[in-house]
Amino acid sequence: MSQSTKKHVVILGAGFGGLNAAKQLLKADCQVTLVDRNNHHLFQPLLYQVATAQLSTPDIAKSIRSTLPMNKNVNVLMDEVMGIELDKKSVQLASGNHLNYDYLIIGLGAVSGYFGNNHWAEHCIGLKSLEEAVRIRRRVLHAYEKAEVSNNPEEQKKLMTTVVVGGGPTGVEMSGSLIELARQVLKGAYHNIDPSKGRVILIEAAPKVLGTFADPLPQRALEALEELGVEVKLNSPVQNITANTVELKDETIHAENIIWAAGVQAPQITQTLGLPTSRGGQILVEKDCSLPNHPEAFAIGDIVSMKDAAGKPVPGVSPAAIQMGKHVAKLIQTELKLNKSAGEVKRPRFAYFDKGSMATIGRSKAIASFSIFKMTGIIAWLMWLFIHLLYLVGFKNKISVLLQWFYAYVNFQRGARIISGLTHKNQN
Amino acid sequence: MSQSTKKHVVILGAGFGGLNAAKQLLKADCQVTLVDRNNHHLFQPLLYQVATAQLSTPDIAKSIRSTLPMNKNVNVLMDEVMGIELDKKSVQLASGNHLNYDYLIIGLGAVSGYFGNNHWAEHCIGLKSLEEAVRIRRRVLHAYEKAEVSNNPEEQKKLMTTVVVGGGPTGVEMSGSLIELARQVLKGAYHNIDPSKGRVILIEAAPKVLGTFADPLPQRALEALEELGVEVKLNSPVQNITANTVELKDETIHAENIIWAAGVQAPQITQTLGLPTSRGGQILVEKDCSLPNHPEAFAIGDIVSMKDAAGKPVPGVSPAAIQMGKHVAKLIQTELKLNKSAGEVKRPRFAYFDKGSMATIGRSKAIASFSIFKMTGIIAWLMWLFIHLLYLVGFKNKISVLLQWFYAYVNFQRGARIISGLTHKNQN
Repeated sequence: MSQSTKKHVVILGAGFGGLNAAKQLLKADCQVTLVDRNNHHLFQPLLYQVATAQLSTPDIAKSIRSTLPMNKNVNVLMDEVMGIELDKKSVQLASGNHLNYDYLIIGLGAVSGYFGNNHWAEHCIGLKSLEEAVRIRRRVLHAYEKAEVSNNPEEQKKLMTTVVVGGGPTGVEMSGSLIELARQVLKGAYHNIDPSKGRVILIEAAPKVLGTFADPLPQRALEALEELGVEVKLNSPVQNITANTVELKDETIHAENIIWAAGVQAPQITQTLGLPTSRGGQILVEKDCSLPNHPEAFAIGDIVSMKDAAGKPVPGVSPAAIQMGKHVAKLIQTELKLNKSAGEVKRPRFAYFDKGSMATIGRSKAIASFSIFKMTGIIAWLMWLFIHLLYLVGFKNKISVLLQWFYAYVNFQRGARIISGLTHKNQN
Repeated sequence: MSQSTKKHVVILGAGFGGLNAAKQLLKADCQVTLVDRNNHHLFQPLLYQVATAQLSTPDIAKSIRSTLPMNKNVNVLMDEVMGIELDKKSVQLASGNHLNYDYLIIGLGAVSGYFGNNHWAEHCIGLKSLEEAVRIRRRVLHAYEKAEVSNNPEEQKKLMTTVVVGGGPTGVEMSGSLIELARQVLKGAYHNIDPSKGRVILIEAAPKVLGTFADPLPQRALEALEELGVEVKLNSPVQNITANTVELKDETIHAENIIWAAGVQAPQITQTLGLPTSRGGQILVEKDCSLPNHPEAFAIGDIVSMKDAAGKPVPGVSPAAIQMGKHVAKLIQTELKLNKSAGEVKRPRFAYFDKGSMATIGRSKAIASFSIFKMTGIIAWLMWLFIHLLYLVGFKNKISVLLQWFYAYVNFQRGARIISGLTHKNQN
């Protein structure tokens, strides 16, 4: 059977969903094209550790080509998706190339969402890409350096204040790590300022942090954050964000850096498909993750909105994306094996298996929530370390991350305290 | 003795010279201010390994503050030097601050020099900073990705060609590492192109590479480079460089990336001191590294031009900078101990101790030249590895680099194959 007569599966996005779909399809009798605008798969759950100088960028990213075996049926293209024509079964790319497909898997991933206040974006930094993580690292470390050479106490105070908006797992892990950077790592390294007086303010609209975790974990997380020195402001919806300023109902905070961890939305392209979407732009997929009236096209990961069999929404987390990627790849594999057209074989619905959730709160502390038990403290933290190492792609990365964690643990230092990418043109 | 009555030593630049001077002065009875525009000390000899995706940026850089003990007599400022007034004994900084000094040590380091053709700079990338190394990595890896999605054979050929100008140690190590990237690491990872057909062209005006090494090492290096697949063009002075084009006497080469490793010059500020300089702008210092008529001010490293006792020029290499830094710090220490003014005590001349030179040429090959013996092959390469690890600042960095090297050696992969910092505004 010549290659050209094989069915062509196009996968858009090499995140957790797309990459796992591609790996599953290595065993299938089809030609696969995997498109991503980056050359690397990114392990997003550890992005906050790059942002806070614990890990370096190659520790949590691996070139897509090197994660897939060579000379197999998967072709990787570094290109950007400009348009999807579902009726023509065609994808247009920024290079000018078109890809015609028999099956399509859309796993492009969510982007930072500002609840309709898109003008806030220019004053905040999100945490979705390596570029954003390195920008946070550069800006936060640079802020202390600028405070050291400043003679203006008001200016110093602003430089040493960081606001994190959003009390979900990203915001909690980020703010815990930022306060430890100031109080444990940078403390004592300056002559004119005392970095341990640096403020990290976590802002959450709801009455508790980690709202998706079962009680008493949100309360435990709050206590742990406050013990570290994070100022947590609950019931505090953001009214407005301007340059270096966050306005709450009864307070205005001046901060050199404002980190946005409050919400995500689907990328613009989901609006161009002529399909029903959620308020956040997520595609309302069928129970098998296919698009309505398009059994040959699927969407997976945090750009879809769907409910599991029990009626609970499937969360936009990496285990869900991985499971969806494998699920749709297996559906395609079955249809190819039986030589049927898309949708001809009755498909099982996607069933989300909740493996539990975890979040670290600084050194030696974490909270973990599983279906049958909950956990806090150092055991939860060790489990968090172990599970993240387990899922990290690449043997070298596992060893390297373990080394950095060990180093940081024993001497309270962080190996990636590097301000890079600062040029005359780019002062932020 | 209160702090304010202590003598103030200002060190400009935290490279090999400045950092070693600062470390030496930890033991002296003075107040030290160390100024650098970066927050990190950079291990420049391994910069080419960041540029070719072997190491990540924090592996070869360490925050200056964390290399110096806390609460000592050294104050670190991340700031840029805008002017030096030797007569007023004052340094102006970009922050607006002024530093008055009793002793000054200038170790600002050389920059890429284009022999009067400064318009070439915009078409080349130098290899002096982390930013430049990451830019080379991004551009070289991206070139292969662009070639993969291109349908134009001429364009693909250009994208897969890299020119390195300058056959000194930097150019030799860079071109060897680039050809290995193409032929060993990227080979087989693409469908539309064959990266092992990528060209790396090393251009040298002189009749041999590594001209400062004793025979037969230059010839051995040439053979090793050609065996790896580098096209070495000797006796080929560059006539002109424009966008993606290098013109030689009888040939024009089209290349996506042109890397400049042909020459350095002193930074502009050395021209503002009213002192005699060499053709490359290097300061013609006295025999003790002090500035003419300014016994309280010194210049060290590759921004000075001086001859040793035998009349041989001291080379612009890191061991010379380290030795100069320690030398001037000891002179200052002695004068402080004896409570004398600058220059009152007779000073010994700076004596350069040549520890030898080494260069690697790809996997398992190196050449080494010491005063009593010369060496090539795998023993030289192992020695190169060992010595570079030894001098790398920071225990964590040593372990991390060793890990990456081991990983690369056993599986021919490179851990830092990450294209980062690519944005819509920044396509280069």
